[in-house]
Amino acid sequence: MEREFIEWLTATLPASPLLKVGLGDDAAVLNWAAAGGDLVAATDTVTDRVDFHLHEIEPRRAGHKALAVNLSDMAAMAAEPVAALVSLVLPQKGCGQRSARQLAEELFRGMLPLAEEFGCVIAGGDTNLWDGPLAVSVTLLGRVGRAGPLTRSGARRGEAVLVTGACGGSILGRHLDVQPRVREALTLRAEHGATAAIDVSDGLALDASRLAAASGCGVALDVAAIPISPDAGQLAQQTGRTPLQHALGDGEDFELVFTAPIEEAERLVAEQPLDVPVTRIGRCVDAAGLWKVDAGGRLEPLRPTGFLHGQK
Amino acid sequence: MEREFIEWLTATLPASPLLKVGLGDDAAVLNWAAAGGDLVAATDTVTDRVDFHLHEIEPRRAGHKALAVNLSDMAAMAAEPVAALVSLVLPQKGCGQRSARQLAEELFRGMLPLAEEFGCVIAGGDTNLWDGPLAVSVTLLGRVGRAGPLTRSGARRGEAVLVTGACGGSILGRHLDVQPRVREALTLRAEHGATAAIDVSDGLALDASRLAAASGCGVALDVAAIPISPDAGQLAQQTGRTPLQHALGDGEDFELVFTAPIEEAERLVAEQPLDVPVTRIGRCVDAAGLWKVDAGGRLEPLRPTGFLHGQK
Repeated sequence: MEREFIEWLTATLPASPLLKVGLGDDAAVLNWAAAGGDLVAATDTVTDRVDFHLHEIEPRRAGHKALAVNLSDMAAMAAEPVAALVSLVLPQKGCGQRSARQLAEELFRGMLPLAEEFGCVIAGGDTNLWDGPLAVSVTLLGRVGRAGPLTRSGARRGEAVLVTGACGGSILGRHLDVQPRVREALTLRAEHGATAAIDVSDGLALDASRLAAASGCGVALDVAAIPISPDAGQLAQQTGRTPLQHALGDGEDFELVFTAPIEEAERLVAEQPLDVPVTRIGRCVDAAGLWKVDAGGRLEPLRPTGFLHGQK
Repeated sequence: MEREFIEWLTATLPASPLLKVGLGDDAAVLNWAAAGGDLVAATDTVTDRVDFHLHEIEPRRAGHKALAVNLSDMAAMAAEPVAALVSLVLPQKGCGQRSARQLAEELFRGMLPLAEEFGCVIAGGDTNLWDGPLAVSVTLLGRVGRAGPLTRSGARRGEAVLVTGACGGSILGRHLDVQPRVREALTLRAEHGATAAIDVSDGLALDASRLAAASGCGVALDVAAIPISPDAGQLAQQTGRTPLQHALGDGEDFELVFTAPIEEAERLVAEQPLDVPVTRIGRCVDAAGLWKVDAGGRLEPLRPTGFLHGQK
């Protein structure tokens, strides 16, 4: 299977001048001097029955998600994607009517449009069969943009906290159709003074608290300002929780939570220069931890709800 | 679990001047200009019940193997390892008496000595729990040595085919205790005119035929010269096959099959400059495919036996 699959993939993948040695050797060789600058590297694995239910979806959506969550990590660093390596662990019996080989192709068909959209070459990978469920592991290599990387640790007291898009209820389907905020992040970093960022993978509240902790400050959220996804409203009707609780605690929005000086934040919100809305949702404060601002302007502790891997 | 595990790992990993941003952010940032040169990238996943049986071994041996097989890919390219990213997919119930967290630590305890030995920083990773078996996905980033990469495609007609170490029977245990031939490959490339290489992952015969195909030539093996591991002899007593059959067809020796001009090969064999023996086992010929040289010097077709992923 592997040889035929690699032949298909080799014929399918677009050429790239960066790739000196591509598929079919023991490793890929990339002309990193032409890519330029520091190397940003992230790896993320998505698995059947945790990140999706393979029997219930088109496999290409699983492929899309596997690449998209890694692109989202590039976005969170304000890095430009350059190359991806894809390691497939395939159920040897395939899935439903599809053989393992067909499944592998479908996964790539989900990845290729996204790779093309974000200028990312598939540099290599690995294909394995086993008697377990599907796992797709992607490693993404990117380059730092002109303005440097956007880490979690760059936020300073007094800065505004903002978020792209809207949060909550991604489990209704948006968690599969992730739109990585790569272009947005590069623009925010280079043109709008963004100082720190994290992508919302485990929950807005939890991820905001992580950014705060990494930056050595606290984050106070104006919870009334949080943009709530229509999905959160729909989900709330089923769960009995509030749409806000879903917006704060649901994972896999893959929006960017970021910080910027107040005046930059005000300009951003007024001008809305991105393809996705930007909303100011709070500020960085001295007191460590996560807070919400009450009606009187006082800080109350806010629980950093979210999805903790390993606590399922 | 993930937070505690990352804290442990952060405290355990040695520092590296190359690593501008390490664990704890959305991605790693590496000073690739300081690393220098083209980037070599490989990814390989090892899985329970295929690459090892987790219940029967110390988990650190699985960790060792996961990193070692990727280092072997670097060796096959004559690349110097620089950084590794490690994605763990852990059974949520752990394994035997060990929790998932303990299992994760043990896997890293198997990787860390090897990472240190080969000057490779653990730049990042990802930890996942699920109800499936263990899968460990490693991506290795390396730099091309002064003499350039050693691909599969550089062999030319008339050159000698050589192999490091001895082959066959790795299933008796050597397949876990992989010794990546990184230093050997760098020396062979820089000082002994090696022209092409592949690591023996799927079987000497099969991998030699792949090198031949990539180079657009054939390979004729002098089968009497093939160095046979004592493990192949031991295994042959159980299987009824010959030690030579095991040496030709068994996978996971992780030795290097490489080519060099005849005079270089003769000098290599005479001087034995490596820590591991080097044996001349054949030559590159015009006729495509894999051959063996019979007693009269004629070529007979030789079946490229080996382990084909997807044909289990």
